[in-house]
Amino acid sequence: MKPLVSIIMGSTSDFPVMKGAAEILNTFEIPFEINALSAHRTPGEVEAFSKSAYDNGIRVIIAGAGMAAHLAGVIASMTTLPVIGVPIKASLDGLDALLAMVQMPPGIPVATVAIDGSRNAGILAVQILAAGDPGLQQKLVSFKTELKEKIVKANQELSTAKYKYRVK
Amino acid sequence: MKPLVSIIMGSTSDFPVMKGAAEILNTFEIPFEINALSAHRTPGEVEAFSKSAYDNGIRVIIAGAGMAAHLAGVIASMTTLPVIGVPIKASLDGLDALLAMVQMPPGIPVATVAIDGSRNAGILAVQILAAGDPGLQQKLVSFKTELKEKIVKANQELSTAKYKYRVK
Amino acid sequence: MKPLVSIIMGSTSDFPVMKGAAEILNTFEIPFEINALSAHRTPGEVEAFSKSAYDNGIRVIIAGAGMAAHLAGVIASMTTLPVIGVPIKASLDGLDALLAMVQMPPGIPVATVAIDGSRNAGILAVQILAAGDPGLQQKLVSFKTELKEKIVKANQELSTAKYKYRVK
Amino acid sequence: MKPLVSIIMGSTSDFPVMKGAAEILNTFEIPFEINALSAHRTPGEVEAFSKSAYDNGIRVIIAGAGMAAHLAGVIASMTTLPVIGVPIKASLDGLDALLAMVQMPPGIPVATVAIDGSRNAGILAVQILAAGDPGLQQKLVSFKTELKEKIVKANQELSTAKYKYRVK
Amino acid sequence: MKPLVSIIMGSTSDFPVMKGAAEILNTFEIPFEINALSAHRTPGEVEAFSKSAYDNGIRVIIAGAGMAAHLAGVIASMTTLPVIGVPIKASLDGLDALLAMVQMPPGIPVATVAIDGSRNAGILAVQILAAGDPGLQQKLVSFKTELKEKIVKANQELSTAKYKYRVK
Amino acid sequence: MKPLVSIIMGSTSDFPVMKGAAEILNTFEIPFEINALSAHRTPGEVEAFSKSAYDNGIRVIIAGAGMAAHLAGVIASMTTLPVIGVPIKASLDGLDALLAMVQMPPGIPVATVAIDGSRNAGILAVQILAAGDPGLQQKLVSFKTELKEKIVKANQELSTAKYKYRVK
Amino acid sequence: MKPLVSIIMGSTSDFPVMKGAAEILNTFEIPFEINALSAHRTPGEVEAFSKSAYDNGIRVIIAGAGMAAHLAGVIASMTTLPVIGVPIKASLDGLDALLAMVQMPPGIPVATVAIDGSRNAGILAVQILAAGDPGLQQKLVSFKTELKEKIVKANQELSTAKYKYRVK
Amino acid sequence: MKPLVSIIMGSTSDFPVMKGAAEILNTFEIPFEINALSAHRTPGEVEAFSKSAYDNGIRVIIAGAGMAAHLAGVIASMTTLPVIGVPIKASLDGLDALLAMVQMPPGIPVATVAIDGSRNAGILAVQILAAGDPGLQQKLVSFKTELKEKIVKANQELSTAKYKYRVK
Repeated sequence: MKPLVSIIMGSTSDFPVMKGAAEILNTFEIPFEINALSAHRTPGEVEAFSKSAYDNGIRVIIAGAGMAAHLAGVIASMTTLPVIGVPIKASLDGLDALLAMVQMPPGIPVATVAIDGSRNAGILAVQILAAGDPGLQQKLVSFKTELKEKIVKANQELSTAKYKYRVK
Repeated sequence: MKPLVSIIMGSTSDFPVMKGAAEILNTFEIPFEINALSAHRTPGEVEAFSKSAYDNGIRVIIAGAGMAAHLAGVIASMTTLPVIGVPIKASLDGLDALLAMVQMPPGIPVATVAIDGSRNAGILAVQILAAGDPGLQQKLVSFKTELKEKIVKANQELSTAKYKYRVK
Repeated sequence: MKPLVSIIMGSTSDFPVMKGAAEILNTFEIPFEINALSAHRTPGEVEAFSKSAYDNGIRVIIAGAGMAAHLAGVIASMTTLPVIGVPIKASLDGLDALLAMVQMPPGIPVATVAIDGSRNAGILAVQILAAGDPGLQQKLVSFKTELKEKIVKANQELSTAKYKYRVK
Repeated sequence: MKPLVSIIMGSTSDFPVMKGAAEILNTFEIPFEINALSAHRTPGEVEAFSKSAYDNGIRVIIAGAGMAAHLAGVIASMTTLPVIGVPIKASLDGLDALLAMVQMPPGIPVATVAIDGSRNAGILAVQILAAGDPGLQQKLVSFKTELKEKIVKANQELSTAKYKYRVK
Repeated sequence: MKPLVSIIMGSTSDFPVMKGAAEILNTFEIPFEINALSAHRTPGEVEAFSKSAYDNGIRVIIAGAGMAAHLAGVIASMTTLPVIGVPIKASLDGLDALLAMVQMPPGIPVATVAIDGSRNAGILAVQILAAGDPGLQQKLVSFKTELKEKIVKANQELSTAKYKYRVK
Repeated sequence: MKPLVSIIMGSTSDFPVMKGAAEILNTFEIPFEINALSAHRTPGEVEAFSKSAYDNGIRVIIAGAGMAAHLAGVIASMTTLPVIGVPIKASLDGLDALLAMVQMPPGIPVATVAIDGSRNAGILAVQILAAGDPGLQQKLVSFKTELKEKIVKANQELSTAKYKYRVK
Repeated sequence: MKPLVSIIMGSTSDFPVMKGAAEILNTFEIPFEINALSAHRTPGEVEAFSKSAYDNGIRVIIAGAGMAAHLAGVIASMTTLPVIGVPIKASLDGLDALLAMVQMPPGIPVATVAIDGSRNAGILAVQILAAGDPGLQQKLVSFKTELKEKIVKANQELSTAKYKYRVK
Repeated sequence: MKPLVSIIMGSTSDFPVMKGAAEILNTFEIPFEINALSAHRTPGEVEAFSKSAYDNGIRVIIAGAGMAAHLAGVIASMTTLPVIGVPIKASLDGLDALLAMVQMPPGIPVATVAIDGSRNAGILAVQILAAGDPGLQQKLVSFKTELKEKIVKANQELSTAKYKYRVK
């Protein structure tokens, strides 16, 4: 089994956030790998990873980093694979990481999701892989249905909030 | 020829920004369509489009909008295709559109690029389609080489800036 | 008894904030309903609700959501009723939700109140209903008087703060 | 004919923005008045206006102001009518006016629309008045249909943008 | 003894912040009064206070408020006395209160100090009163000297931080 | 005639903004001086000025500067006179200058007015001087009345805006 | 042993942040001194320090301060030594301190590092000193290698996160 | 003559901003080189440059870039030389570039100057080189004196602004 998705984070301290992506990929039964590589502290490793990812079978890269979050952009500059960026909240409420990821100059996009939005990064990776995989498409349709059912169910819990003038 | 990518914008006044995506797709010879649909003014059309896009052969959607930019998120809620969002600068330097696009709640990602970054949206769409298309991969590699050559060439123009203590 | 006001929230986890609106409506003896509906996870339900609200007797809608808060705008695009938006603080101190609600494009307004300002959303709903209801007007006048009395009373508690040079 | 809506602006220099509200009210054939009153420079006039507005037949107030925009809040503190606030861009891209309007403390709501969003303020006023007026409801439905038709028509203009790989 | 300075706060919950001003005035032996008055909930009381303050002997007003902090500006519009504004952190890290206080339009200044900066508001009030009072001037000079001595003394505590390469 | 107010600006390029303060002081017939002194480029001159200002008869200092605007704070650290700060818009819409002026640490207040708000700085200086000068008080009262009359007059110009449904 | 680097902080309460710089200098065996001096409360001491630093053998100054952080700029205005600024988070998430440090006007640079980034300030000081010191260069090379090894090692801890579809 | 300082910019379009650094270095007669290299489009060239800079005699690197400005940080990750970052205003008033440069994670500092502050970057480079070069120190002292003289002279121009109550 070779990984299709590679999850990279700037520091192992980002794992509590980034595990959201791993859980989604696991749920969708997509083989993946997880590693901590820093754009600033291990630039050589980042380069080696980025340049060989396509040939190693990777089809989507998810990169999470905080502060002046260069990791996703640096990887994107050295691969033709789609790179999904997760800005991690470490300072300034995550605004610095968001801007440092999303505001990429023309030529090198990073597909940025919400601050600490690693679950969405995982789902986006699945959506990208599903473009050419009808089975995965079907799983996404089911996943969306479950999201809906969850909120419908949760809504029922709201019925415990009683007010004299509430109408049900 | 059926379109693989659909470019949607919230208003025809967004076309001067969004044509960047069209030009990229044209360059990569990827069939695409362009339409103006508003999440707020034509919600029915947005729904009809979103729900049928996959069956109509679309594989990636690019959505651009300004201000409280809901278009990309609304489309994403009604399709399993990857949706790329382009925040358009119409007020507050585009910060409102950026946040209204990228900060999607868990379950429904939007792959957001830079403010007014429609060229990058086009490139990201190509990268997504190229995951399963070696020919397109090769074109992306060439595209990256050209980006590099352009800056190397532009660098030569800098040589016209003469200073007594500049060393070349 | 049919509800005149409908309180919608993007997730049941928003209830601790949104109950402020319910309490106000209860105080003013205005029949209301509360539901959790997500613009992104249950778009069909949101549409069904929005399109039938007026015919079902609803006269004002209060919608609360966080992050890229599209709920209020999406509802507003499918009804002619006034929609009051409550931006909920879930990230970036609520600034993302505020901008994603208030910065609506021309044609589809959302009457936005303060971040987490659900009590004010309730009061605004009452003020809208009171336009044609002298009895409700009178209750609003009394409510304002009570607000004043509370702060006058609270002011008396300040008298316990003693300083040598404080004059009373 | 007595006015149902009162448009107040902090300075006559705000008229180029605020006329958007006047145009909407005119289109919907709703009698209105326009005046410039400053919360800071004519507090007495603001008080006199606010306290008598309901008895004078006004049912909705629209207030526009820039910078530390207190006008809407000050009026709201002295009336039980719904007050719609239009933050006007005069400095800091309008962010100061937006926050000074929307972040009202509990008890005194201001129904805030987008920065420079006076057209939406007008539409919101109509929506509020329409709650008890089926004829006005019908006009709003027609207005929404026109908004949709405009964008559908504008979409046709996009067809002039020709690209080799564009599919229509 | 009649008060020379009046400390006003928008709500008694602001007292833990605003007492900083009271302590400074007490230290400088300047008679003062403290009251909670809300621009929005007790506009009549604010007006009565503002219009009579000069005649009652007040020479400086200190007003603290949070969120859309109108209190200082509203008072300033109804008096010719200098009004010092203290933006109180209640939401958005206090940025809303700061902008709603400091960005006053031409004609009606508010002398704004830092977010939660009530001690500085007290000192500024003393500086204003000292313009015509050599005795108070002298106390200010002593106060500045003490500030300096405190930091010089605190500096000595730093000497307990020992590092091999620290030089003293 | 000795100056009572000293206007200091960080650079002569700030004069187009700062002349607003000069005009106000001239209108109120208050003797003043204007100088350009830079906290960063002429620290010695700033020190000499600040330390002698009180003895030279100055009673209020107005300091304007842009970017990392330290001028007002540096002067305030070396005098016991009230220092009014005018943040000048030179970058980041003036937000940097505003924060660098208003967020002074405990002990050294700067009375900050709006970005580019030099007219208000002048008025505030007059209000401070008027605390002990009934004649100046009277002039301020007249000034406020004129402000009011101007807006009342400007309001009449609004009457030229004609709409079928406008009521006058 | 005379100090080569001087660490200055605006208040002793900044020590928990600023000790990061001390630790780095200690690690690199560079003699340094630490003092608390306030631009606002001890301007004379700041001046005396700044003007004599070069002659006392200091080659780099590190200055940390919060809020309207003038310390680094004020020192930089009175020395020709490079001054490294550490914005300290005390309010507004440190954004005020960052802008008040980094946005220096032309002529007087402050080499600003991240909010609370005192370790980086220490490393930058070492890098500056190492320009002419091959031995120190070598230590920096080793330091970078250790940074890399740490993250490589930490990466191994990630291997404990087990998922069925994780590939290693 | 070998260059001591290397000026790198992300794009030749940054030259109008970055030439400020070149002019300063020329004035101080410090040999330098200028090149355009993009962290994202020519990562290989950036790496080659960064890794050989020290051995090629470079002692300080100045890097300017806009948007998600990674250039300075990427270079800093591959050299032990001090790297000065100039955030260039290309979007969001330069705030994105500022945060993407200055908020570097622990281990890899970038000495950041003001947005578009290339002149200060040049001066900082001179200050760093001057640490071990008394002749350069002397030039810096003269440079500071000239800065002062310029503002003193400019101040004289202010004397042309005549007001009846201006005192000179």
